[in-house]
Amino acid sequence: MNRAELIEQIKQKRSFLCVGLDADIEKIPAHLKELEDPIFEFNKAIIDATKDYCVAYKPNIAFYESLGSKGWISLEKTLAYIPKDIFTIADAKRGDIGNTSILYARAFFEHMNFDSITVAPYMGSDSVLPFLTYKNKWVILLALTSNEGALDFQFMTSNSSGLKLHEKVILKANTWGNKDNLMFVVGATRPEMLKAIRKIAPDNFLLVPGVGAQGGNLEEVAKNGMNKECGLLINSSRAIIYADSTENFAEVAKEQARKLQEEMKIYLDSFGI
Amino acid sequence: MNRAELIEQIKQKRSFLCVGLDADIEKIPAHLKELEDPIFEFNKAIIDATKDYCVAYKPNIAFYESLGSKGWISLEKTLAYIPKDIFTIADAKRGDIGNTSILYARAFFEHMNFDSITVAPYMGSDSVLPFLTYKNKWVILLALTSNEGALDFQFMTSNSSGLKLHEKVILKANTWGNKDNLMFVVGATRPEMLKAIRKIAPDNFLLVPGVGAQGGNLEEVAKNGMNKECGLLINSSRAIIYADSTENFAEVAKEQARKLQEEMKIYLDSFGI
Repeated sequence: MNRAELIEQIKQKRSFLCVGLDADIEKIPAHLKELEDPIFEFNKAIIDATKDYCVAYKPNIAFYESLGSKGWISLEKTLAYIPKDIFTIADAKRGDIGNTSILYARAFFEHMNFDSITVAPYMGSDSVLPFLTYKNKWVILLALTSNEGALDFQFMTSNSSGLKLHEKVILKANTWGNKDNLMFVVGATRPEMLKAIRKIAPDNFLLVPGVGAQGGNLEEVAKNGMNKECGLLINSSRAIIYADSTENFAEVAKEQARKLQEEMKIYLDSFGI
Repeated sequence: MNRAELIEQIKQKRSFLCVGLDADIEKIPAHLKELEDPIFEFNKAIIDATKDYCVAYKPNIAFYESLGSKGWISLEKTLAYIPKDIFTIADAKRGDIGNTSILYARAFFEHMNFDSITVAPYMGSDSVLPFLTYKNKWVILLALTSNEGALDFQFMTSNSSGLKLHEKVILKANTWGNKDNLMFVVGATRPEMLKAIRKIAPDNFLLVPGVGAQGGNLEEVAKNGMNKECGLLINSSRAIIYADSTENFAEVAKEQARKLQEEMKIYLDSFGI
C-alpha cells in the first residue's frame, strides 16, 4: 500500500487506529480453545468486529513464533484474511546484515505480503536498505520506544553532534529512505517528545504504540504528533482485543475500537484532514 | 548447557568452532531439492559431517522464516537432530518489550530448546532480562557487529561517559547478567577492537561471526580475543556449508571444519587450555 492510499483510508474511515493482533493462547476466550486453530479464530472474530474502525492491523510476530510452526500457520491465515484495503504491519523488530535482511524481506513482504515491518536500527544501514527496494512496502524503524529500557541507550547523547541516539537514528534513516517508505516507532508515554521528533521528521508517519494498556494519552499524542496528512498510526492491542474474555469478546472489542475511532475523528476534523 | 559444560566441550574437541546453519534453498545442492524436506536433509548431512569438529551450531532464523511455516518445521527438526552435547544458538537478533521478550524466550528456549539466542540491545533491559530468568540458557547480545552498517550507530560516543555505544551496551548488560548467562557478538573484521572489548568484558564468551566469507582472520581473533577459559566461539557459515555444491558437499564441509579445528587446536594449546 502506498502513502496516498493509506491517507485516503484514514480520511474515509475518520480513523488512524491500528489494532494490535497480539493473540495469546493463554488469554483468548476459553470457548475458542476447542476449535482447530484457536488463534486464527480469535483474530478472525477481532478483524470482523473492528475492520470498520481501524486502518491497520499489527500482529506481534512473537505471539505466533512462541507456538512454533503452528503459530506461523495461524499468522499466514490471519494475513490472508485481513481486507486488502487495510494496512498490515509485521511487528517483528528484525535487524540483521544485508543478506539476512533480504531473507526477512522475502519472508514478510513476499511470502506473507505484509505492507510493512518494524526494524531495529542497531546494525545500521544493512538492516534497513534491503527492505526499501520493494515498491509500496515500508520499513517502520524503532526510534523512541515506550518501554522502561528505552532509557538505557536511546537517550545517549553524541559528543560530536549533540544528538540523542534516537534522533541520530531518525536523521540517518531519512538519508536511506523517505516519507514514502519509512515510518518511525515513537512511544506514546512521552508525548512531549513527539513534538521534538516532529521537528526532525515532519513528514514521516509515526507508529505510536502504547495507547491504552501502556498508558499513552490519545489527545496528547494527536496534539503533538499530527501533521497535515495525519502522519500517525496509533496502536492499541490489549485494550481492544482483551477488553472482554467471554463469548461476547468480539462485540466488546468492536465497542472499544469504535470509541477510539470516534475520538480520532474529532482530532482529524480539528486538523482539517 | 552451562558454562562449565561448554568449556569442557571446547577442551575435549580442541575446538571453539561454531557452524552457521544458514541453509538457503537457492544454494543447497540440486540433488537434495527432490527430497521432501531439502533444508532438513541438508542440515542433517552437514551436522553428521561436522559434529566432531565444532562445539556449537547456529541456525540463522531468517533462512527458515523466509520459507514460512515449512521452514519453521525444518528448523524444529534440525534442532531435534543436533547432538545434546553441542551448544545451540538461535541467531534471531530479537529485541522487544518485556512481555514480548517472554514470548520469544518461550519460542526459542522452551518450544525449541535452544541453549542461547542472539538479542539486539536497542530497547534496553526489557529486551534482555526475560531471557536471563532461564537456568543454563544464554543471551548473546549484539555489541560490535561485523557489517558495514556497524559504523552508523555503534561507534557513537557519549558526551557524558566518553564510552562508545557498543562499550556502553557491554558494560550495562553485565549489570543485568554475567559470564554464566551472557555472551556478546563481536565482529571479526576489526580484530584490534577485540582487545579493547576484552578489557571491559574479560570473562564473557564472545561470539565472533565473519571468519571466512566475511574476511576475519582466525589467528588475529584468537590472539586478541582469547581468555584463560578460551572465551571464544568463532562462527563460520558459508565457508563450510557451501564449500562445495555437488553430491560431495558434506565431505568437503567436513574437510573445511576439520581444517579450522586443527588451527584452533594450535591456539588452545599455546594458551594452555
